[in-house]
Amino acid sequence: MQKIAIGLLGCGTVGSAVAELINENQQEISRRAGKELIIKKVLVSDATKKRTSALPQSVFTTEINDILDDPEISIVVEVMGGIEPAKQYILQAIARGKHVVTANKALLAEQGKDIIQQAQKMATMLMFEAAVAGGIPIVKVLKEGLVANHIKQISAIVNGTSNYILTDMYYQQNDFTTVLKAAQAAGYAELDPTFDLEGIDAAHKITLLATIAFGIPLSFDKVDISGIRVITQLDIQYAKELGYIIKPLAVTQCKDTGYALSIFPALLLKDHPLARVDGVMNALFVSADGVGDTMYYGAGAGGRPTASAVIADIVDVVRTMTTDPEQRVPHLAYQDISQPVTFMSKDEIKYANYLRVMVDDKVGVLASITQALANNNISIEAIIQKETNMDNNIVPIVILTKQASETNVDNVITELSQLPCVKEDVIRIRLIG
Amino acid sequence: MQKIAIGLLGCGTVGSAVAELINENQQEISRRAGKELIIKKVLVSDATKKRTSALPQSVFTTEINDILDDPEISIVVEVMGGIEPAKQYILQAIARGKHVVTANKALLAEQGKDIIQQAQKMATMLMFEAAVAGGIPIVKVLKEGLVANHIKQISAIVNGTSNYILTDMYYQQNDFTTVLKAAQAAGYAELDPTFDLEGIDAAHKITLLATIAFGIPLSFDKVDISGIRVITQLDIQYAKELGYIIKPLAVTQCKDTGYALSIFPALLLKDHPLARVDGVMNALFVSADGVGDTMYYGAGAGGRPTASAVIADIVDVVRTMTTDPEQRVPHLAYQDISQPVTFMSKDEIKYANYLRVMVDDKVGVLASITQALANNNISIEAIIQKETNMDNNIVPIVILTKQASETNVDNVITELSQLPCVKEDVIRIRLIG
Repeated sequence: MQKIAIGLLGCGTVGSAVAELINENQQEISRRAGKELIIKKVLVSDATKKRTSALPQSVFTTEINDILDDPEISIVVEVMGGIEPAKQYILQAIARGKHVVTANKALLAEQGKDIIQQAQKMATMLMFEAAVAGGIPIVKVLKEGLVANHIKQISAIVNGTSNYILTDMYYQQNDFTTVLKAAQAAGYAELDPTFDLEGIDAAHKITLLATIAFGIPLSFDKVDISGIRVITQLDIQYAKELGYIIKPLAVTQCKDTGYALSIFPALLLKDHPLARVDGVMNALFVSADGVGDTMYYGAGAGGRPTASAVIADIVDVVRTMTTDPEQRVPHLAYQDISQPVTFMSKDEIKYANYLRVMVDDKVGVLASITQALANNNISIEAIIQKETNMDNNIVPIVILTKQASETNVDNVITELSQLPCVKEDVIRIRLIG
Repeated sequence: MQKIAIGLLGCGTVGSAVAELINENQQEISRRAGKELIIKKVLVSDATKKRTSALPQSVFTTEINDILDDPEISIVVEVMGGIEPAKQYILQAIARGKHVVTANKALLAEQGKDIIQQAQKMATMLMFEAAVAGGIPIVKVLKEGLVANHIKQISAIVNGTSNYILTDMYYQQNDFTTVLKAAQAAGYAELDPTFDLEGIDAAHKITLLATIAFGIPLSFDKVDISGIRVITQLDIQYAKELGYIIKPLAVTQCKDTGYALSIFPALLLKDHPLARVDGVMNALFVSADGVGDTMYYGAGAGGRPTASAVIADIVDVVRTMTTDPEQRVPHLAYQDISQPVTFMSKDEIKYANYLRVMVDDKVGVLASITQALANNNISIEAIIQKETNMDNNIVPIVILTKQASETNVDNVITELSQLPCVKEDVIRIRLIG
């Protein structure tokens, strides 16, 4: 059986898992691929360190050129992460005619254009299934499985850390800080969780998803990002009472007026298929004009799930290495993604919203608030003001609005914040139907 | 742009939808595929009948050879259904070197071997994404997306009619007959619903799934089939009380002792990802050793969802037409599926079970029943006997058993049925964890 030599850049959690999974399932993978996958060399920072029993120590090297200059290595797998030196290594591998498989969402979302252009020029493949939602084969689904469809919207839970925290807040009634500490102790959150909680990681992923779903340029700078840090136990409880659950969503839409990419915590009705995606799990809910609504659920991170995606990409490369490049699935799903596109303005993006306003419990407060909403042309779907036992005489008023433009909601939040009776920042959570 | 000529066999709901979706999304499909798809000829029984505005009337023909003998037509799409003449047409198309896309699950599951052999011999492609779970790209996921994995189990809701009926029984508390009539009126059930309700349709699908997941021969004759007709509102209510929902499942497993394929109604815990797959929707829950658990959800039938899958197959064929056949994804996912395999015996297949026994409300009845369970080495997890207001003095006893072999459960049901106090057939529903 023909052997395919692979160079691996990085041997952390994912790199080790790639080696181990290839080892464990060598026979089954060979029966499917018709080729044997061999990890020939692995770039690491310390070639003497013991990393995994799936690889002989002799494959490790600290010298990138051992991989780049090896003519037998036709596929380079980048699982080292970070922008540099990963980017230079990938560009050099492509320049030598090697195919590249990467899990690097940040690199692709922020600087993917250069890399894709280089791969197109050299007619090599550049695959990134593992960059979005770990082991869920969503990139293949969008690029190939739903090829007949005009895709209208993707609503996705793609950040496991954020989902873990909101799930725990919902089911265990813990507050944000407590859950975050527990998540860090359990390894579900980084010591510096900024990328996850502020929505940057999800923004990288929605950038890639929007591009392959709609055929638009990589548009990381167009993502409107709100993290989940503003959510309190009070919001969780109000949401529950109203029949909703709060989930960390990445959303991208294609409408007549243009495209939109957003990251925000959202209220989902309890019977929405995404509402039961709990803990660190990921899921992507895709609305398309042919197939209708479909959903893809699984582990969004972790060594073995990510390795599953990386190896699927390797096998895809193996299958199409000898194919005329024109016949291959395009790098970003569409033949040409360079034409200019229009993004929706904040006047055009519309959601229903949950607004929580903390007010002095005085006569006339509700009148001021509803007047502010009316001033900004926002209709009220429901409003809750309850007796509370808060000691400082500050009480929450929760409003569910009907669909309103982002501009109008931004404006009403500014107006509300300036009212003397409003004592804290207004909390806004969008609703996804 | 190069044009690809397609011959369509059949122009009912699916055939029309294929033509319409290609028409509507021509530009987007071309941007992805790099080719233009043209439906050149369509085989129908009456070429004068108006079928869809997406096709000029001149493409219709009643003569199969108009398609088979047309050298420009490189892809034949069979959406006529049934075993014959579909099988002969497909075999003749392959004999002429044409690639085939089919949605025909019955044909493939029952007589696919001949067709696959012919396609292998002629080095043509034979694609069947639409044969399982409509628009959900599960065939591609199993054949390509999860290629790195040893798949352990698939638990799937793949019959929309059965799911619709059990969902309605659960949420609306209607009885089986009432729901079936409503489903027939709404077009969700055939006038003769035998294939759906007796589990034959699901058995066709699990046959295809097991083959591409595990690399085993098509084994329709090995499927153990139980339909959903035995389920009553009483079972639905007991299930609910115990924290479960009853779903129509197709299950296939790969264990050290062999393979198993089964169709049965099952109790699922309410927080299982499959538990919220309601109405006519389908979903497949796949357990694998690399990626872990993943789930795929969407419409399992209907013209446009099925057309979405058919067109994805067409585009796949277009991409790999010029590829060395050895490099293509194998017809049934694995290079060679002819080696003999072992199926699990009823001693080896084990489930926890729900048993409902209708008994005369007399002293000593519970002792007789629990003795019968003990005689067959079946442990009890929970038992419910409630006061009821049934007028004939017959009361239900509901038992949840621990894991027990199919043989032991079959035996205890026989033994229970022979007890004088047992007045109706014992109802058994397996539990899926």
